[in-house]
Amino acid sequence: MTRRSSVPPPVTAVLDASSRWLPSRLGEVEEQLREQSRGHGELLAADAGATLAAGGKRLRPLLVLLCAGADGGEEAVRAATAIELVHMATLVHDDVLDDAPLRRGRPTVAATGGRGRAVAVGDLLFSRAFALLAAHGDTRAISLLAEASVALARGELAQRQDAFDTGISERRYLERCQMKTGKLFECACLLGLDVEALGAFGAEIGLAFQLLDDVLDVSGPPERTGKARGTDLLDGTVTLPLIVAAEADPAIRDVDLSGLDSDAAESFCDRIAATGALDQVRTRALSMVTAAKQKLNEAQFDGEQKHLLELVADGVVQRYS
Amino acid sequence: MTRRSSVPPPVTAVLDASSRWLPSRLGEVEEQLREQSRGHGELLAADAGATLAAGGKRLRPLLVLLCAGADGGEEAVRAATAIELVHMATLVHDDVLDDAPLRRGRPTVAATGGRGRAVAVGDLLFSRAFALLAAHGDTRAISLLAEASVALARGELAQRQDAFDTGISERRYLERCQMKTGKLFECACLLGLDVEALGAFGAEIGLAFQLLDDVLDVSGPPERTGKARGTDLLDGTVTLPLIVAAEADPAIRDVDLSGLDSDAAESFCDRIAATGALDQVRTRALSMVTAAKQKLNEAQFDGEQKHLLELVADGVVQRYS
Repeated sequence: MTRRSSVPPPVTAVLDASSRWLPSRLGEVEEQLREQSRGHGELLAADAGATLAAGGKRLRPLLVLLCAGADGGEEAVRAATAIELVHMATLVHDDVLDDAPLRRGRPTVAATGGRGRAVAVGDLLFSRAFALLAAHGDTRAISLLAEASVALARGELAQRQDAFDTGISERRYLERCQMKTGKLFECACLLGLDVEALGAFGAEIGLAFQLLDDVLDVSGPPERTGKARGTDLLDGTVTLPLIVAAEADPAIRDVDLSGLDSDAAESFCDRIAATGALDQVRTRALSMVTAAKQKLNEAQFDGEQKHLLELVADGVVQRYS
Repeated sequence: MTRRSSVPPPVTAVLDASSRWLPSRLGEVEEQLREQSRGHGELLAADAGATLAAGGKRLRPLLVLLCAGADGGEEAVRAATAIELVHMATLVHDDVLDDAPLRRGRPTVAATGGRGRAVAVGDLLFSRAFALLAAHGDTRAISLLAEASVALARGELAQRQDAFDTGISERRYLERCQMKTGKLFECACLLGLDVEALGAFGAEIGLAFQLLDDVLDVSGPPERTGKARGTDLLDGTVTLPLIVAAEADPAIRDVDLSGLDSDAAESFCDRIAATGALDQVRTRALSMVTAAKQKLNEAQFDGEQKHLLELVADGVVQRYS
């Protein structure tokens, strides 16, 4: 249930398949992101600059630009930049919460600069997102992004409230995923184009993305996911693999997560996997992707855009990290 | 240099002096603030609700409403609510940074719910501020508030960057205060009325507010300020009293703040006070208030509003906490 950022998502495939406009548009987003870390003096340059430069594959900006299409223009580039700034802000704050030493193979702001600095850097990235949009009067984008940010924070709170509770329902889990992950994917699509079906597409692939994330936490292998198996369990985060596994092996609900060490967490992962839960959750994620693609048919959409969005949808469940 | 919130600012005097419209308008802000903690289910209700209810005297909303005047209407109430939400968000985040157990005599979110929860609650309050304004298309307000939020975060970063550096200049100190405190006061006034002189008034009294805060950290008495003397020094925050004291007693710059315990911090406060620095800084704060009031003359302003704003200006330096 960690929001994964070291995701090598399907950007390469999409860029390979896209004809003309997408790579340069993504380049403009990168340039604007760099500007955000330059524009505020040496203070921000070190931390936020490093965070921004550390990259990730800009999946949310990609969705904005794809949905906006070839004629998206400056407004789409700004929206893509802003949503990535918000995403980065949440990552920096997540690292404060988790005391995470590394993200994307680089030391986190929290680790190098301390918690205080990381909270402030996150706040700064967050503020910059809204300042960027406000400076150009992009009211619709501000509204979408603010609502998505509210959902993100609520999702984070919900996850903390549920921590170590092995009794949570699948419905509650999905609600949390929707807030923590689905909403920002939905927002990305709507920022690109204000079409309900596209928002639904984004929300679906966001959910699928999170489900696969939660499978990978249990399945590993660590050398491909870049983190130890059972990291979420150690944090007390109960995810769908555990919930599904408990249907076959109800005693799983009785395990005291707060008593786990990393070895015990790995064994517990094996026990979850032994129920076949991982395949079931993977199948669920795949069917979400299928459902998402069907939404694209509802939107009257240019053939290339549709094809590229399908590639993104496939990509969110074809990854290891 | 701590952003003080347990401020009983001059609200009472202002409310006493104001004839008709102000108290009910402030009541609407309170109602909207309560709505923010109700509107998001039980998750937010506990933490954010407690934070909002804990109060403070709503100095920034007061400035918004005063500057907007009797005809300010719904837009002013929303702006006043939004700026208080941002302020509360920064307080909740500050408490994460400082591991503060109490604020305004109540346990902080960080202390009761943990750091993770506090970061998320702060993010939520922050997001709600922008969502509220965006929902009504208040673009100018969003723009002002986003820029002020950027400044707040930069100020916070600057303070962390300067921590334990007794060599910082007065200019750097003032720059930091401007970002951390002045900017949000300026924003409050401009949210109320888009007149440059009013913004300058707000920035000035914000600075004066911070200077007095920094005097109180050194002077105490704790039973009136509600915190131990030298709290900022223990955090490594070098403020104007120290900088001014070092002009009379240069060896003050040689003290290693990171080596202080609370007794040593108190003695160090005595040493700073012995130079007469506190009176000098108080005088500076008072002259800022005078300068601020002069700005009011530049704005073409209704007599009652002007009088009430003068009361606020006087009030920021007539307080103990």
